[in-house]
Parts: sequence; C-alpha cells; structure tokens
Amino acid sequence: MAGSTFGELFRVTNFGESHGPAIGCVIDGCPPGLALTEADIQPELDRRRPGTSRHVTQRNEPDTVEILSGVYEGLTTGTPICLLIRNTDQRSKDYGNILDTFRPGHADYTYWRKYGLRDPRGGGRSSARLTAPMVGAGAVARKWLRQAYGTEFRGCMTQLGEIDIAFEGWEHVGHNPFFAANASQIAQLEDYMDSLRKAGDSVGARIRVEATGVPVGLGEPLFDKLDADIAYALMGINAVKGVEIGAGFRSVAQRGTEHGDELTPEGFASNNAGGVLGGISTGQDVVASIAIKPTSSIRSPKASIDRAGQPTTVETFGRHDPCVGIRATPIAEAMLALVLMDHALRHRAQCGDVALPIDPIPAHR
Amino acid sequence: MAGSTFGELFRVTNFGESHGPAIGCVIDGCPPGLALTEADIQPELDRRRPGTSRHVTQRNEPDTVEILSGVYEGLTTGTPICLLIRNTDQRSKDYGNILDTFRPGHADYTYWRKYGLRDPRGGGRSSARLTAPMVGAGAVARKWLRQAYGTEFRGCMTQLGEIDIAFEGWEHVGHNPFFAANASQIAQLEDYMDSLRKAGDSVGARIRVEATGVPVGLGEPLFDKLDADIAYALMGINAVKGVEIGAGFRSVAQRGTEHGDELTPEGFASNNAGGVLGGISTGQDVVASIAIKPTSSIRSPKASIDRAGQPTTVETFGRHDPCVGIRATPIAEAMLALVLMDHALRHRAQCGDVALPIDPIPAHR
Amino acid sequence: MAGSTFGELFRVTNFGESHGPAIGCVIDGCPPGLALTEADIQPELDRRRPGTSRHVTQRNEPDTVEILSGVYEGLTTGTPICLLIRNTDQRSKDYGNILDTFRPGHADYTYWRKYGLRDPRGGGRSSARLTAPMVGAGAVARKWLRQAYGTEFRGCMTQLGEIDIAFEGWEHVGHNPFFAANASQIAQLEDYMDSLRKAGDSVGARIRVEATGVPVGLGEPLFDKLDADIAYALMGINAVKGVEIGAGFRSVAQRGTEHGDELTPEGFASNNAGGVLGGISTGQDVVASIAIKPTSSIRSPKASIDRAGQPTTVETFGRHDPCVGIRATPIAEAMLALVLMDHALRHRAQCGDVALPIDPIPAHR
Amino acid sequence: MAGSTFGELFRVTNFGESHGPAIGCVIDGCPPGLALTEADIQPELDRRRPGTSRHVTQRNEPDTVEILSGVYEGLTTGTPICLLIRNTDQRSKDYGNILDTFRPGHADYTYWRKYGLRDPRGGGRSSARLTAPMVGAGAVARKWLRQAYGTEFRGCMTQLGEIDIAFEGWEHVGHNPFFAANASQIAQLEDYMDSLRKAGDSVGARIRVEATGVPVGLGEPLFDKLDADIAYALMGINAVKGVEIGAGFRSVAQRGTEHGDELTPEGFASNNAGGVLGGISTGQDVVASIAIKPTSSIRSPKASIDRAGQPTTVETFGRHDPCVGIRATPIAEAMLALVLMDHALRHRAQCGDVALPIDPIPAHR
Repeated sequence: MAGSTFGELFRVTNFGESHGPAIGCVIDGCPPGLALTEADIQPELDRRRPGTSRHVTQRNEPDTVEILSGVYEGLTTGTPICLLIRNTDQRSKDYGNILDTFRPGHADYTYWRKYGLRDPRGGGRSSARLTAPMVGAGAVARKWLRQAYGTEFRGCMTQLGEIDIAFEGWEHVGHNPFFAANASQIAQLEDYMDSLRKAGDSVGARIRVEATGVPVGLGEPLFDKLDADIAYALMGINAVKGVEIGAGFRSVAQRGTEHGDELTPEGFASNNAGGVLGGISTGQDVVASIAIKPTSSIRSPKASIDRAGQPTTVETFGRHDPCVGIRATPIAEAMLALVLMDHALRHRAQCGDVALPIDPIPAHR
Repeated sequence: MAGSTFGELFRVTNFGESHGPAIGCVIDGCPPGLALTEADIQPELDRRRPGTSRHVTQRNEPDTVEILSGVYEGLTTGTPICLLIRNTDQRSKDYGNILDTFRPGHADYTYWRKYGLRDPRGGGRSSARLTAPMVGAGAVARKWLRQAYGTEFRGCMTQLGEIDIAFEGWEHVGHNPFFAANASQIAQLEDYMDSLRKAGDSVGARIRVEATGVPVGLGEPLFDKLDADIAYALMGINAVKGVEIGAGFRSVAQRGTEHGDELTPEGFASNNAGGVLGGISTGQDVVASIAIKPTSSIRSPKASIDRAGQPTTVETFGRHDPCVGIRATPIAEAMLALVLMDHALRHRAQCGDVALPIDPIPAHR
Repeated sequence: MAGSTFGELFRVTNFGESHGPAIGCVIDGCPPGLALTEADIQPELDRRRPGTSRHVTQRNEPDTVEILSGVYEGLTTGTPICLLIRNTDQRSKDYGNILDTFRPGHADYTYWRKYGLRDPRGGGRSSARLTAPMVGAGAVARKWLRQAYGTEFRGCMTQLGEIDIAFEGWEHVGHNPFFAANASQIAQLEDYMDSLRKAGDSVGARIRVEATGVPVGLGEPLFDKLDADIAYALMGINAVKGVEIGAGFRSVAQRGTEHGDELTPEGFASNNAGGVLGGISTGQDVVASIAIKPTSSIRSPKASIDRAGQPTTVETFGRHDPCVGIRATPIAEAMLALVLMDHALRHRAQCGDVALPIDPIPAHR
Repeated sequence: MAGSTFGELFRVTNFGESHGPAIGCVIDGCPPGLALTEADIQPELDRRRPGTSRHVTQRNEPDTVEILSGVYEGLTTGTPICLLIRNTDQRSKDYGNILDTFRPGHADYTYWRKYGLRDPRGGGRSSARLTAPMVGAGAVARKWLRQAYGTEFRGCMTQLGEIDIAFEGWEHVGHNPFFAANASQIAQLEDYMDSLRKAGDSVGARIRVEATGVPVGLGEPLFDKLDADIAYALMGINAVKGVEIGAGFRSVAQRGTEHGDELTPEGFASNNAGGVLGGISTGQDVVASIAIKPTSSIRSPKASIDRAGQPTTVETFGRHDPCVGIRATPIAEAMLALVLMDHALRHRAQCGDVALPIDPIPAHR
C-alpha cells in the first residue's frame, strides 16, 4: 500500500536504502518444497551488479545474498523467505554536494516534497540499488516457473541512445557488457559510451524482454490483466518512461487485417499481441519493450534550485552509470518473472490445476 | 485479486457483461460530504457512449446511470456508491457466428482457455462496454479532485492510423467525433474512416491524456509509483498496447543534459518527466500517451480455428467500432483520474493534510 | 480497505443501505463452471429474512435475489457475480424520531462522528439488513465447498438471555423460530420473548456454528490464521461482542494434559481445538461460538444527547427485533462459509491441488 | 495474503523462524518525521522476552533489536523500517524427539499436512517467538499514537487457570512476573505455577488489554470494523481461543435497558460497548479480553501418532513456558496498538484531518 510490496500472492516486500546497513526483501507465498540455496540466486545478482565493466558505476559492491528464513534443509517451507544483502561500499561523502539541491530529472525534489525530509545518501530509497533484492526474488520465481512449466526469461538491449542494435542472436547477450544480442556492433557501442563519459553526459536505452514457455490462461480481467501488470512492473523500474507489449506503438498504424494474429492448428501465425489477448496469456512468448531515460546524475552543470527555493547550479560527481539502461536487462527479466509467478498462483487459486478442456494449440514463437 | 477491483483506497469494483441485464460498479472509500447526483456522472458517460457518430458502433445504448447507494440527501455518506447501468440494446444474435470460433486478435480464445467456458454475447466480460462504469467512477473522482486541488483532466487523439493529428488547441476536442485537438484535419480523418469502413478493415490510434493542477507528492516508492500505476491503468484499457509518460520512447535517444527538466524559482523549465520523478508527482502536468491497436472484430476474413482445433475462417459482422481508439479519450481521462484520486487518499493516509515545509515552486505547464 | 469488501480471493463487495433502493454484493473470484441459479441462493435468504415469526421484526421484505452478472447458461463464468436485492418496505417515517438523537448502544453516534453526516433511515449502512447479501454470497460458497470437499455448515442458538438451551439434536433447528437444537424448551423461549416484548426490552443470545467435512491445511500463518479470520468474520456481524473457537474461554481453566486433543490412527480423540491448530485446520469440525448483545433499539426510555450535545431521552418505536440473535444463525453460518471458501482458494494458490504426503487421519467429530 | 503481513496502511511483514539465523519485520507506511531509535523499541521487547523469571521459558535470548532501514538522522523517512532480531540461543537438539511425532494441541501436525514438510526446530514458524517483531512494530505504533492523540495502552492478567486475579490497580502490573494488576495474590500465583511445573503440566490464562485516549471515528463499516480487526489481531496471537470486546459474553444475559451505554453531555455513563459501536470507536477506552489455552508442550505423556500414522506417546522436554499467557500481555498490547495505528491512517485517508462538526463529548473511562 505504501509501495514496498510487489505482487498479490507471490509477495515481495522490499526494504533498505542505498547507503544504509543493508537492503533486502521478504518473499511471502512461495510454494513449499522448492529446492533453494543462495547459489540459485547469486548468479542473477551478479549479472546486475555494479563494477563489472567500465561502462557502469565503479561502486564496488559484491551484493552477496543471504537467506535468513523460509528454507529448511534446502527446501522452501512455505513461510517467508528473507533475502539480505549487506551494503559494503557506502562512500557517502561523494554525495555531500547534493544535500541541499535537487538534481534535474532526479527524485531528490519529489521525495523531499512528499515526506518533508529525505535520506540523500546515494539516492536513499530512490536508488536503482533497490532493484537488487527484486532480482534476487526474481531468481526464486524463475526457478519455480522453470520447474513447473518450463518457462524461461531473456532480454537484450535493442537501442542505445541513437544507435539501433541489430538482433543477431540470443547467444551474444552474455558476451558483452551491454546485454546486446549482437556481436558486430559492440565496438561501436563502447566508443559511444566512452565519448559520453568524456563529455560528462548520459543517454537512454531501449530494452526488450521476453518469457517463453508461458502457460495459457494467466492474467485476470478486468484490471489485473497480465499486460497491465507487466506495464506496472516495468514502468516501476527506475528511469523507465515507456512500456510496449508486442507490436506496441507500431500497432497504431497497423490495420486490423494485419495486426490480429491468425490461429492455425499448429499455433498462432504471428505475435503482434506479444503473447497477451484480453489481458490473458495466449501461450505464445510474452514480449515487452521499455524505454529508459538518460541518467540524471551527470557531471555537466544544470540549473536547479536549493531547499530555500533559490537558483543554483548542480553538477554531480561520484560514481554513476552514464546509461542506467545497461544494467536494466536482468532487472526487467526479474520483474517479468515476478509478474508471471504471481499470476500462475492466482490462476490456480481460481481455476485450479485441472486440465483444460482441449489440448492447447502449439504456441507460435 | 480476481481482477475486478481497481484502486487501493478509492476502490472501484466493476461487474457485468456486455449483453447481461446490467453493468455497473461499486465505489468504496469515497470521502463523505461530496455533493453528488447522477447529473455529475451522466455527461462523462455521454462522451463515451456508442451511437454518437457514424464512426463508432451503431449500437444504440443510452447508458443511463443510476446511483443505488452511498448518497443521502445529495451528499456522499462515506459508504459504498453503487452505479448501475442497464443494458437495453443486446441484439445477441449478431454474434451467433462467433460462438465456436476465435476472432484473431480478440480475447475469445484466451477467455475460453482460462475458464473453460465463456459468455460470447457481445464479447461478454471482455467488451469495451465495461469501461462505462469506470468512466462513471472517474466522474466522481474528477469532481472530488477538482474541489480539493483544482485538478482537471483532458485528452485528445494525436494519431489515427498513419495520420498524425496536429495539436491546434484543446478547444477543438469537443467539436469533432475524434477527440482531435484540431479543426483543420477533420475532413481528412472522416474520409479515412469512411474508406476503412468500406474496406471492412480497422485501424489503431494514439491518445494523449493529461492532468493539470496536480498536487506535489503523490505516488509511492518503490512499487506503487504514480507512473507505474498510470501504466497499469492505461494498459488495462481494452486494446492498449503501449504507454508512455512524458517524453516516453523519445527519451531513449535524449542526452541527460537535454532530458532532465531544470528547476527554477518560477517552476520547472520543461516537462520531459511528464510530471513524475522517482514515481512521485512533481506538481507539473501529468502527461501520458497510449497506443491502441486496431479493432479485432472486422468484416474481412481471417484464418482461425474452431473449438475442436480445426482450421476455419472468421468474418465478424455486427456493430463494431472500426477504430476503438475513437472513444478511448474519455476512458483514458477517467482512468488517470482514478489513479490520482487513489494516490491523493494514500498520500494523506501516510503524510496527512499538513502543510509542506516550503511553498511549492510554481509548476511549469 | 474502506470496509466493504470481505475476503482476499473469494471477494465479496457489499453495497447498499437499509432504506435505499437496493442492497447487494459483487462476488469476485468464484471458480468458473459452478452451476448456479437464484434457486441456490434464495432458500438461505429466506432463512434469514424478517417477518417470519412474531419474535422478529415485522418488516415485511421478500428479499428476492437477482443475479445480474457472472453466470452464463446456468454456469459461473469466473467473472464477477452481482447479487441484487431490491428494498421494498422502507417505511422511513418510523425512524423520524431518531434523526437528531443517538440511541444508546447504537452506531448512530459513531457514524455521525466519523463521517460528519449519516443516513438515518433504518440505520442506513449500520443496519443488520446488510447481512442479507452476505447470506447470499455464503450460499454460493457453500455450494462450491459442498461439491469440492463435502463441507457442510450448521448452527444453533445455545443461550437466550439467561436461558441455556440444551442441545437435543440438529434435526430440531429448522422447526422453531429460534434455531434451537431443541424441542422441549421452545414454549419457555416463546414465553420469555413475549414478556420481553411486553416490557419494551431486549436481550442477548449465544450462537454456535460449525463446519463439517473441512479439508486439512486451510489457514495461513502468521496472520491470516483460519481462527483469526473466523474471529474477524464473526465479530463483524452486527451486535457480536465475543467469539470463541473450540473450548474458547473454558480453556483458561484447563490443564495442558486435558486441553491438547490426542491423535490416534482413527483420528483426534477430542476437539478442544475447535478444528484449528496453529491457525490451520486439522480436518476436525470447525466450531465457533459468538455472543450477541441485546438490541439497542428498544421502547424503554434511555438517557442520551442530541446533535447539539444537549441531554435528551430516547425511546425507539418502529419494527425491531427484540433479540437480534434470533436471526443470527444463518448469518454466522454464511460468514464461516465465506472464510473457509477464501482459505480453500488461498491454499490451492500456494500449495496446489496436489495430493498430501500421507492419507489424512480420519477426523474426530 | 500468505499470512505474513499485518495491517493495510501501517503494514508489518514478519519473517523468520524460532531457530533460524534471525527474525524480524518490515514496517511499511509509517508516517515520516517520527523520532525513532532502537531505544524506543527495546524496552517493549524486554517486557516480552524469555528468561526473566522462573515462570517462563529459561531460553536466554537478549532479543536485541536493530533498525536496518527507514530512519535517517533519527527520524523516520516514510520508507520501510526493517527491524532485525538475531537468534542467539538456538539449542535445537532439545527438540530432536519431536521430529517424527505430533504434540497434541500443537501446530506440528497442521504445518506438516499443509506444506508437506516443516521446520521442527523450536516450532519453526509456529513459535510464539515470532511475536517479538510484532512487539517491536507495536512500539513504533505506540510512539506515533501517543504523540498524535495521547493514546496509551495497558494490559493485565485477570485469570490464571482457576484463579481469578482481583484488579487492585494498574500500578502493580510492572512489579510481578504475571502482569497482574494486583499485589496481594502474587504469592498464591507463584505457588500455583511452581506446583504445575512440578507436575509437568500447563495451564491457561485470561488477559485484559485496553487503549485509552482513543480518537472517535476509527473503524470501517462493514467489514474492517475496529472490533472485528481487534478480534482478528488478538485471535491470531499464539494459543488464543477466545476474544471479547467490552461486556463480551456477559452481554448475552444482559437486557437492552442495561447494556446500552447512555450518553450524557459529560460523556458515556458506562462502557459495556468496550469503546466500539457499529465497528467504530466511540472515544471511550477500547477494552478487550482474551482466553489463552494451556501450553501444548508439556512433560506429561500424551497419546499421539507418528508421521507414518502409527500410535505413539509424546513427552516434551526442553524449555517451555508452563503458561504462555504469562508473557502475552505486552504482545496483546502491541497487537491492539497496531490495529489502532492502521485505523488512524485509514481514517485520515478517507475523512482527512479536518475538524469534526461538533466538539467531542468527553469520553467516559
């Protein structure tokens, strides 16, 4: 209600601040009997963590996860799973210069106006660091969905600033710091980032994220539609300004004769829907794209005001990602996994595990 | 939980099917003491209702709203407000041909797979007709927000199929059937729609919706962010495939030096943020855009399957909007109003009605 | 949130006032495929309705239920079921004398203080009449639970004022106006009520309610315990001042050697637990008792104040039950059914429909 | 939803097991600006903790609380407050003998049946130890309510087994290990406990808990009534089998002329209501009583079954409270505080902080 719990039946309650003693989350509603250790979670956190290339913040944070509860002898017990991540590199003095001013494009101003006070250290609660526990919770959801349905998640960067990134194959994603499904444009992207960093500026990105092996029938009409919940989950990631499902904004100029995905006994013939019709999964791949704005913490000076309302100029030093989108892919995958996990549990609450009346048509991918 | 209630503190529970005896909603959590009669609600329903121009479905439905509870001597009492709208024009036989087949791009298939059965009359629960009660509830929210803060809502169509609609002024919106903020392109739009209808095809649209006079501080980190909740609300409208806040997908190619809205003692100098930073309202106008896909019920034949999984061809007759986006503007305004209303109540729950520590900087519009 | 929705997964949203045009509820989350018509619901409403004996209010209200949505061709579709009950006998002038004063022991005062205004007609929203839609929703839950698990509900009055009512057998409950499981004391109870009515006074009652055929494993630790939710549901019935599970207050003076129900291969050897251990159902009968206070609307004069805070005297005429407990049995059964229904869905969300690791031990009844 | 979060607007998410590495909770929705340190919380935990007299478990656990988030420079920031309590004395081997059997009257059996597995160490999640984080969260609520309204909480044991404990004055509660509002019966209670312990048996208790300085108007009709939420909160405490508000079960035998609390310009003339009418607070003291069953873990042998369903005998050694009611008073106070806190926030969400239309009548205490 006050915004720190995600999900209805697979509920993740997030806590912590960027520079407090720890961040973490409590997962409530996880089915019992899932084999789970830190080793299932740590690899996803490692994909997201800072300090892994020169294009992301040099804050050096191991992000080691500890399971505090909810697991006994290697199996989930059905009770809350608390994941704890200690903050180890807090160098708060780097942020001293922003205590009394508001970075343009940053939540500094709104937090202060909403609550009347704010924790300025590293962005406090508004830091993208708070996505780490969600990536951890997402790893739990991913494991359960994989075992239950064979559902898998993947994502890639499709645009960096003005540069469109051609899709060359999913196998490339793990081999470059941008999560690009591409091998031939990496040097171009690296040069682009280097020049940005030199200029003290930042840039946006577009990320595509998908789920495969999705059961038919997930999503609730009228309001907890699967696509509406995906939009909610992805728009809630720091710096996201737009969300598309399937054909997204391209569907505006499409005709009905073109857009509607035809059904055949072998499956859907196309996937403009992005795997969701009427808010309910079709069994096709669920496909979403997000727009990420440029980082607001930049070295270049911008006009702002101070807490007294007086004009001032803000330049932000410290260790900031020049493109927050670079680390957004595993985050978006995790959020998509959390949405599907929640809807899988909701579905079986109302409709049970019973067999559906006919065999599913094979899903088009 | 099962998807029929919208909102946390200003909760709207929607019920009904397109061709059942009635549709409606129950609003729980409305503040007491608001002057309210059907006359406050009916005009908004009239803006949305079918049969008002040749470009929308000719289903002739007066959509007369009746307040069944929650109001005593013209004032809300703080108890649930039930709005009832009788269905009067149900011509169900028009849909007889779709009982056993699935329209490509339509929820026919997913409803049937999820529940094992479906009400096919007029799309049943998946019909856009179910947005009518939300427009009714939105009218209540709009009245309260207007009185409390001076908040107002407006929207317009900015693209119809391939045609960009130039913004000429809000005053034009009420004078054409497209909700276009434009006077000079109307004939072009009408010709376009006429040819589409003749071709038995349909097309998408892009809608822009705004709130003005928004208080600073609405929205909850980490998950019930104002923009995330707007994305959820708008993506949940029938046929929506994309949502943008502020600069939206344009922000991908922006630099940080360009995107971040500078603050001045006179207010923000621009509004790339769309009125939301860190998930919390800035006091600027809240601005969102949505992509609406083309109607899936079209006369042109498309390949599909029947309930036995056998191939077939579907052509949909009956009275359908060739562009569902045409009537989407008042719906999107209503959903935006419901989100802001809910967050206004949430904010005062946690932070009270107390004065904020400094005078707000004037909002840039 | 504002108190008009009951349940988490089988959600019942209640609306209406005693003397408005209608009362009703919207049930969201009902599993699809349940055969349902008004004939499944009306008999339970008839058990609760006024005017059936001289010991209850003579308000003559048929309480005819109408299903407005969620059912197609006699089967639930998984979408919201709206139940509507028109108010037909509203004789509001009977209550004219209470507009400006507050009945001692009644919600008149608190409603007015909470909301700043109130609907005084027939108690408005605080009327026990609002339990009718819950009895209707309870009938839906009962039918589903009966089919799924063989669960049944029953209840009886065990005390009327000072008179303990001996348990002679469940078969007697339907044959007297008190829902007494007793045939020999009925004349005594009738005389007692007649003298009360003559005296212009009222009296309390104790009701026992049970569920049989309850699956093992319903209830969530730590907070949504089955017994906690039962306490919540029953304490929320108008005029209830106490709730017991199993041995209840008797357990205070019991020793551990006496209280703990021993387990045998044939089942539990006793049922002090009332069918719940650690907040989770044991498979035994779930047994609860409630205390109902005497009706506050009585003819005998009592001291009170008026809206200006001045002392006055209140005597309530009009048609009131001299013992609200008389009609409480079917209400308590319905609320218990709604709790179990909700927990049945919650359980299968987290734990699935899968078989449990060993055969259940037979339940002691 | 899965039972680990308490409250709607002041939400407390509890995690941990009796013998895991830590227990704790996350408080979401706390108003910003409240001065808060561990020193505000630790004294309440100390009132509840084990090892403080020979009549409670000798488990020696300091229960030191650590604030991990949500506080900056000594003030709450409005973001989640994580309270962590490390488990230091876990001697799990004491419980080895209960791994394969089920203690009569204990949650061993139901946990195992619900989830298919259980954490047996110290009762795992079903341990009363999990009330410690709630006492911590309650301390936060108490501080805020005290500052906002002057609300205070107090409680006492009113019955131990067969022994009624006379009320001699609140000042005695802190001076004996039983939380008895009594000085003259302490020796009797100590002898009683000593003989029980010698007999290897346990006994129940009755606890009374009160709030003073309660604002008028808290509580939501129809379902989130203040008394219903109190019943839910108190019945959810380990081992509670009954809850009463005000006159409770005594009201069954009362007449309307006796029960209804008369209003005078100086306040209510009595408090049979226990401070709640129609589910809404009257401004009087809120008064509730609970029945606590005898501890199920006792040395005396009882019949049971093992996991294979075979008959066996269970004797529980280890360190158990012979009367869990002895430490229940601060827990019940905390749960009552959490309910009132939540309703205070809910009330101002819907009704605002605005002045009520007339001065309150003074509350009778």
